[in-house]
Amino acid sequence: MATPKLYVDHLSQPCRSCLVLFRMAGIPCEEVRVTLGRQEQRKPEFLAVNPLGKVPALQDGDLCLPESSAIMQYMCSTRSLEDHWYPSNVRDRALINAAMAWHASSLRIGSMLTVWNRAITLNLGVPGNEQLVQSYGLPTLQAALKALDDVWLRDGSFVAGQAQISIADLLLACEVEQLCLLDGAVQGPGMEELLGPHSRLLAWLDRVRSACSPHYDDVHALLRKSRQRLVERKQAPGASKM
Amino acid sequence: MATPKLYVDHLSQPCRSCLVLFRMAGIPCEEVRVTLGRQEQRKPEFLAVNPLGKVPALQDGDLCLPESSAIMQYMCSTRSLEDHWYPSNVRDRALINAAMAWHASSLRIGSMLTVWNRAITLNLGVPGNEQLVQSYGLPTLQAALKALDDVWLRDGSFVAGQAQISIADLLLACEVEQLCLLDGAVQGPGMEELLGPHSRLLAWLDRVRSACSPHYDDVHALLRKSRQRLVERKQAPGASKM
Repeated sequence: MATPKLYVDHLSQPCRSCLVLFRMAGIPCEEVRVTLGRQEQRKPEFLAVNPLGKVPALQDGDLCLPESSAIMQYMCSTRSLEDHWYPSNVRDRALINAAMAWHASSLRIGSMLTVWNRAITLNLGVPGNEQLVQSYGLPTLQAALKALDDVWLRDGSFVAGQAQISIADLLLACEVEQLCLLDGAVQGPGMEELLGPHSRLLAWLDRVRSACSPHYDDVHALLRKSRQRLVERKQAPGASKM
Repeated sequence: MATPKLYVDHLSQPCRSCLVLFRMAGIPCEEVRVTLGRQEQRKPEFLAVNPLGKVPALQDGDLCLPESSAIMQYMCSTRSLEDHWYPSNVRDRALINAAMAWHASSLRIGSMLTVWNRAITLNLGVPGNEQLVQSYGLPTLQAALKALDDVWLRDGSFVAGQAQISIADLLLACEVEQLCLLDGAVQGPGMEELLGPHSRLLAWLDRVRSACSPHYDDVHALLRKSRQRLVERKQAPGASKM
């Protein structure tokens, strides 16, 4: 089978979930960087691969596939990955599909709106929409973190009652990691404050990190650097007047 | 196999997509009404089925499954449905999974925020958040309708280049239908104005309605009634002062 191309930005959480899966499963792939901060997802050569203008995108032969959850489902169905990533048992698979669908409409929206408007805009030097964060983004994020802890991690060591790690864990964990950028935000809770009340979630996040070592940390290196830059800027004299 | 229970409100678009699939495939099921307008999704007896407090939810033996896309994927994997609903061909299936994932994070969010704040709040007699609609909901909805027309319906008669209807079409079409409630909104575009520029989308919507006749119209009857009530209220003398 020809080497697939994976179009990614390591600062994008759905991209990181795909990268961790590829590396954990030892799937050879050509990683093509699409830097969102430079608007490379709007360039014609990338739009020819994914007309939606979003990363990640997979090119496998003549198939161009968007959406991280679909990319991971597809890789599990076409390569010989260990069954726990996307169990063939129909009941387990259904619950993993449900967790990934829930991610897209709840945790992802809450996290994306909050992190974008409170942190990424600082990096880009554009104003954030604080009203949007307060009226929708942050409440959605906080409710989703509670549901992840209360419902999805209620039974079993991994998401949806699984005993071993699955692609749903990768998708959700990489989303939660994005919250570290809030440590550099001028206002509002940072990652520790947001996750603090959720002990099951914290223990699960450690399990995911550890199950995917060392690839997990490698894939998150750029995010950690970005967090560090934001925190340093916040601590610089006069930063609060920005 | 025991008769599954499907917990639904016909005014919820993801519920309607499941209902159309069950009826089209002739799957016997016990329909349990959970009326969102009466907050029945917060009642303990429903939270025991779906602790996320959302409809639809499926109970099949001892499996309790949330999320419309996961419910449809599961039904296609456990009952003898015609292959076009969720093709076994890995490439077609991947694109259908991608379309459903895209739905959750784009069209659904844009539609839900706009319809909720401009129409459903009128019915409930609570204030809508117009700032949220203008800064995020409506732009997201309009971009998603354009992407549905430009990208997902670019090739083939149905979503993602399929020649026959799939579960992705049901999910997306039932979301688009929800926009009819905007016809009763005090301000902003109604359904015709929103869909007008998108000729492929309009032709596709007709194909979905027709492919699922008469079940599609039956399942949408309550939505149409709700639209009618809003439109009549809007046209009543003095309504614009509300």
